[in-house]
Amino acid sequence: MARFVAVDWGTTNRRSYVIEEGAVVATERDDCGITAIAEGGFDAEVDRLQARFGGAPMLLAGMVGSNRGWIDAGYVPAPADLDRLAAAVVRPRANVAVVPGISRSADGRGDVMRGEEVQLLGAVDAGLAPADALLCQPGTHCKWVRMAKGAVADFTTAMTGEMFALLRDHALIGREMIAQPRDDAAFLGGVAESARGDLLGSLFGVRPASLLGLRAQADAGSFVSGLLIGTDCRAHAAPGEPVYLLADGTIGALYARAIEAIGATARSIDSHAAFVAGITRIQDRLS
Amino acid sequence: MARFVAVDWGTTNRRSYVIEEGAVVATERDDCGITAIAEGGFDAEVDRLQARFGGAPMLLAGMVGSNRGWIDAGYVPAPADLDRLAAAVVRPRANVAVVPGISRSADGRGDVMRGEEVQLLGAVDAGLAPADALLCQPGTHCKWVRMAKGAVADFTTAMTGEMFALLRDHALIGREMIAQPRDDAAFLGGVAESARGDLLGSLFGVRPASLLGLRAQADAGSFVSGLLIGTDCRAHAAPGEPVYLLADGTIGALYARAIEAIGATARSIDSHAAFVAGITRIQDRLS
Repeated sequence: MARFVAVDWGTTNRRSYVIEEGAVVATERDDCGITAIAEGGFDAEVDRLQARFGGAPMLLAGMVGSNRGWIDAGYVPAPADLDRLAAAVVRPRANVAVVPGISRSADGRGDVMRGEEVQLLGAVDAGLAPADALLCQPGTHCKWVRMAKGAVADFTTAMTGEMFALLRDHALIGREMIAQPRDDAAFLGGVAESARGDLLGSLFGVRPASLLGLRAQADAGSFVSGLLIGTDCRAHAAPGEPVYLLADGTIGALYARAIEAIGATARSIDSHAAFVAGITRIQDRLS
Repeated sequence: MARFVAVDWGTTNRRSYVIEEGAVVATERDDCGITAIAEGGFDAEVDRLQARFGGAPMLLAGMVGSNRGWIDAGYVPAPADLDRLAAAVVRPRANVAVVPGISRSADGRGDVMRGEEVQLLGAVDAGLAPADALLCQPGTHCKWVRMAKGAVADFTTAMTGEMFALLRDHALIGREMIAQPRDDAAFLGGVAESARGDLLGSLFGVRPASLLGLRAQADAGSFVSGLLIGTDCRAHAAPGEPVYLLADGTIGALYARAIEAIGATARSIDSHAAFVAGITRIQDRLS
């Protein structure tokens, strides 16, 4: 397989990988996410990328393929594997393809993903996770994904990170959330509290706990983080079950801690390696 | 018992009742809640009330007795009954008393109430609810209260109403919540969805449900309301259990519907009658 350029083009960031024979030979990262591109400016931006990379074939993934990006690449309904995804790429111009997202719709509930599918399918195809597994991608919107026979079989998105920010910035308890969440005893206290299954009550309790001297105000941020992440993990991971975690940094460490605290097993996967594997497998199928 | 004036003095509203021999002979309502009183203005405001009501004894309840009100009347720890509450009133001046709140603290969790205790103890003492019962006071912050032997034995506050407003005003799904919640099929759909026990996931699902055509955008407000109120009710009321509901209007109707939908029984109590009964019983003990 020849040289191609993979672009992980999200809402706020963009990362380009020059890939030769499945190996990354160069990467570039900038803050030209889709919200940084002026209306009508995508064609010129893709021109610029093509010129920069010498006209090599380009494969774009992420929000660039949404109705707020360059072109709406639609969604492939779950269950979706690499073959289905590759068969559904959109080709707005010669030598440039855009990966579609994945949707699920059953029992009156719907969900969508766009960008995460490349990591997920790449992780399994590269052997970083088994073909039948539970994967978790934490973040503002946390994806919990059931892989079956190497395909994305079903998934749920939780507004865990968005909820933390909402509470901190706009709720009455936000005044208590003065310190950044840390992997500490207060975080584990929040994870334990989440076992009560009363999120709306446990959240209210943050202020009286300060008022009555039951918890130091400096611990409120960690406690709320543990409560939300614990609630999220309990809703999706069963005790004893391995959870393959695609996350780095603080958020990855907090999810790993919560997953272990509820009795499941956290197994971290390198999300960049998973993306590169996934996008290379899709490009292979287009060649 | 002679004439006295009871004042239910909350955060945004104030209601005064002139009570003679246990019967209300006059009421006044205004928007002079504690946040409407200028700093240092409470003494003059109480002077004005005393003059207006001819110097009759006054008994104040609600946020006026908080550290943001006229004087901090503190909290009586649960279990708390009318005797304990009456014994702990604060008397900032002759002929004027302020009812304390109730706190609970056990298992590392704390909670407080201020103002609700008069309704709760009044409801039971007047026979509007049994001496051992589960009572619910919906609102921005919803109180779930276990009464035992006529006392407030334990309680939890849930940020149910505040959460609805947070989501509508600041969350990504707020764009979908264009219509006021109603007691309709979408509301019941939200109550049913709450049985999944995945609030953070179910909330995220509101936007994809619109995107994938699974729910009309006009139904999103009712659905989210049903999801939150259903989550709240399931966390506190068991199937088959009677819930004594202190609420009027839309919010009372929505809670009654959700309580019935999860298999419990809703019994509505007149919250004004409960307040008048409670405050009269406390005044009796002061005379």
